[in-house]
Amino acid sequence: MNSLRQAAILAVGSELLTPSRVDTNSLFITEQLNLLGVDVAFKVIVGDDRGGLAHLFSTAFERVDLVVCSGGLGPTDDDVTREVVAEVLNRSLAEDESITARIRARFASRGMKMPEINRRQAMVPEGAIVLENPRGTAPGLWIEHADRLVLLLPGPPRELKPILSELVRGRLSARAGEAALVRKVIRITGRTESHTEEAVQPLYLEWARREVPVSATILAALGQIELHLSAKAGARDTAERAIDRAAEEVQRVLGLDVYSTDGRQLEEVLGDLLTRKGLHIAVAESCTGGLITSRLTDVPGSSRYVDQSVVAYSNEAKVALLNVARELIDEHGAVSDPVALAMADGIRSRSSADVGVGVTGIAGPSGGTAEKPVGTVVVAVVTADLSRSRVFRFVGEREQVKFQASQAGLDMVRRLLLEP
Amino acid sequence: MNSLRQAAILAVGSELLTPSRVDTNSLFITEQLNLLGVDVAFKVIVGDDRGGLAHLFSTAFERVDLVVCSGGLGPTDDDVTREVVAEVLNRSLAEDESITARIRARFASRGMKMPEINRRQAMVPEGAIVLENPRGTAPGLWIEHADRLVLLLPGPPRELKPILSELVRGRLSARAGEAALVRKVIRITGRTESHTEEAVQPLYLEWARREVPVSATILAALGQIELHLSAKAGARDTAERAIDRAAEEVQRVLGLDVYSTDGRQLEEVLGDLLTRKGLHIAVAESCTGGLITSRLTDVPGSSRYVDQSVVAYSNEAKVALLNVARELIDEHGAVSDPVALAMADGIRSRSSADVGVGVTGIAGPSGGTAEKPVGTVVVAVVTADLSRSRVFRFVGEREQVKFQASQAGLDMVRRLLLEP
Repeated sequence: MNSLRQAAILAVGSELLTPSRVDTNSLFITEQLNLLGVDVAFKVIVGDDRGGLAHLFSTAFERVDLVVCSGGLGPTDDDVTREVVAEVLNRSLAEDESITARIRARFASRGMKMPEINRRQAMVPEGAIVLENPRGTAPGLWIEHADRLVLLLPGPPRELKPILSELVRGRLSARAGEAALVRKVIRITGRTESHTEEAVQPLYLEWARREVPVSATILAALGQIELHLSAKAGARDTAERAIDRAAEEVQRVLGLDVYSTDGRQLEEVLGDLLTRKGLHIAVAESCTGGLITSRLTDVPGSSRYVDQSVVAYSNEAKVALLNVARELIDEHGAVSDPVALAMADGIRSRSSADVGVGVTGIAGPSGGTAEKPVGTVVVAVVTADLSRSRVFRFVGEREQVKFQASQAGLDMVRRLLLEP
Repeated sequence: MNSLRQAAILAVGSELLTPSRVDTNSLFITEQLNLLGVDVAFKVIVGDDRGGLAHLFSTAFERVDLVVCSGGLGPTDDDVTREVVAEVLNRSLAEDESITARIRARFASRGMKMPEINRRQAMVPEGAIVLENPRGTAPGLWIEHADRLVLLLPGPPRELKPILSELVRGRLSARAGEAALVRKVIRITGRTESHTEEAVQPLYLEWARREVPVSATILAALGQIELHLSAKAGARDTAERAIDRAAEEVQRVLGLDVYSTDGRQLEEVLGDLLTRKGLHIAVAESCTGGLITSRLTDVPGSSRYVDQSVVAYSNEAKVALLNVARELIDEHGAVSDPVALAMADGIRSRSSADVGVGVTGIAGPSGGTAEKPVGTVVVAVVTADLSRSRVFRFVGEREQVKFQASQAGLDMVRRLLLEP
C-alpha cells in the first residue's frame, strides 16, 4: 500500500445540499489527517444518490491515497454509501452477525426492539475491517483496495469523532509515516482583527524565513480573534518546537489578550483559574439569560466552583432575587453601571461566592434607545477587595449580542483574577 | 442549450481545505438556484491547484447542466480558475481592454496605480459574457458550452452575492423556465429516527406517485428528528401546495410529536404558546446550568413570559434557593422525581410564575452510578392544576446531555400546555 500523502473527503447526505446546512465533519477530519502530515486535496459533498455518489467516489479514488467518506451509513433506504462503495470496488456485501447482535443489544439496553431495517447497518463489504462505533449503531469500515485506503465513517459527529481519533492514534498513524503537519490555535480577546494583525505582522516575515517555516492565518470569530499557526516538518517534534516557539512570540507581543494557546475555550481557562485559586463564582444574569452559567457548567468538574446563579430578567426579579434597590433602577435605568454592580454584589452575598458577576444589557432586536442602543451591555465583577464594571457596545443579532456579552463577562473575571 | 435542472457548485481556494474554514458561498448559491427550481447535485471544494481543479471541473461538467465556480479569480499566480476552465473547454483567453480600463479606474479612484498583475483579471475566455462586478476587480464570467452553462464568480461573498442575485432576477431565470423547488423542515421530538421512519414510510410511496412528487430525507439531530421535504413543480404555488399537503399528512401520522413545520425552533414554539396563553414560566436548573433559560431568552420578546430562573447546582443551593427539603435529597438523591418536582414547585412559588420547571441530572463525565448512570436526567413540570415528572437516559458527552435535557424540558412544557 502507498504511504498516505493526499486525502479526499466525501460527505454524503442530501440535507448537506440544502441552503441551511454545512458539512462540519470535514473540518475535524482535516484536522486529524493533518496531524499525520496528510493533506486534504479536495472535498466533495454529494446527496443520497447512487449514481452521483458512484461517479464522485470513483473520481476521488483515482486521485488520492485515502478517501474518507462520512454519512450514508444509516438504516434507511436513502443510506447508500456502503452499497455504492462496495459496488465501485467490486466487492460483495454480507451481513456480519456480530454487528447485528451488537445493534440488537444497543436497542435492548434502552428497552426497545431493533427494527428490522437496522440489519442493513450490519452489511460489510468483503475484506473490510469493521471499526467499532461505541456511540451508535453503524460501525465504521476500513477498506484497502489497489494500494489505496477507503474509510467509511458514520455521519453524526459524536459517532465519527471517536472512531477517527482512535484510528489516528493507531492504525492510521502506522500508515502515514513520519511527516507531520502541526497546527495551533491562539485565542485572543480585547482586540480587533486589524489590531491583532498589526501587532503580529512583524513576526510573519521572520517565521517564513526559518528552517521550519511557520505560517499564520488570522480569523475573526464571535467575541474573539483566532490566530491559526501551522508548520510541517519531517518529524512531529521538530514541527511542534517551531509552533511552540511562534506561539510564545505571539504571547510576548499580545500579553494578557491571549487567553489560550492549547485549544481551551474561555470557560475552561477561567474554570482552571478558579480551581487553582480555590474560588467560587456566582452570576446574576439579565440579558445573557443564563448563558454565562451554562458555559461555565459546560466544563466537566465545574461543580468545584459553581454552586448557584440567578437569571433576573425583569426589574422585579432584580429587586426580589438580588436585592437591587428599586431607586437605583429608577434613577440609572436597568442597563447601567450601578445596577450591574448591585446585581454582582447581590448574587455574591446571597451565594457567599468569592466572585460575583452581574450582566445587564439590551440584546435586541427592540428595547434600544438613542443613548443605549441595542447591543449595549454592562458587565460588573465584584470580589471581597475589588470591583470593576464596564460598558460594551456589541454589534449583531440577539444571539450574537448574548454570546459576546457572555464572552465579555467570562473575560473580565479572567483578567481580574490575573491582576497582580 | 438545455433548460437548467441540475447544478454543481465548485468552491476554489486552498484556505477552504484547512480545519477552520467552511465554504459558505455555496449556501447562498444553493438558495438562489433553488428559487429557480434548479437542484444542487453536488458540491466540490478544491485548492488552488491546476491539476485537481481541471479534473474536478471536468467531472462536474460531465454530470450537470450548470457548473457554478466561486473563487480563484484574483490577480495572483495561485488564482487559476479562469485559465483552467478555459483550458478544459478548449477556449483561448484574451485580454478584454474594457475590463482593464475599469480595473485601472477603480484603483485610480482610491488614488492608487493598478499593479500590472491585475491585468490577469481582464483575461476572458473566447465567447464568454462578462458579468460586471460593482464591488471588486474580478468580473464574473458566463460561458455557454456544449448545451451547458458555466458561471465563474469571484470568491468574496460581498462581490459574489450581488452578481448572482442579478443573474437570478434576469439572465438565469430566463434559462431556468418556470419551475420552482420548495423545501420544508418538519421537526419532531419523542421518537427515534427509525421509529419516525417506520411511521412515515407509507407516505413516501404515495408522495412519489403524485403529480407533484414530494421527496423526503430523514435526519437525526441532537434531541430531535428532522424530516426534510422537497417538491419541484412548474410554478412555485403548485410546489408549495404539494409540500403543505405532505406536511399535514405527516402531522396527522405523528400528532403532537411534530412540534414545528415552519422552521421554528422548539424554544420559539413554546414561546408562542406561552404568549398566546398569557402564561409566565420559571425554571429551576441543575444539570442544565442555565441552558433552558438561555434558550428561552434567545427568542425576541421572551420578556413577555420569562421573569426569572435559578441555577441551583449544589444541593445547598437547591435547599436555600428553592426550598427543597434537605430530607428529600437525603432520602431520594438529588437526581430523583421528588427532588425535580420540589424544584419545580419551589421556583414556581418563589417567582409566582404559572409554570414551574425543575431539571436535575448527571451530565457527566463523572458522577454516575450503576443505578443512575451518566445521562440520567429528571424533568418536572408543575402548574396550578397539573404536575408531571419523567426520568430520561441520554447518551452523549456532557454538552450533549445538557442540550438533550434542555430539549426534554422545553418539550414537556409544550406537551403539557397542549393537553386538552
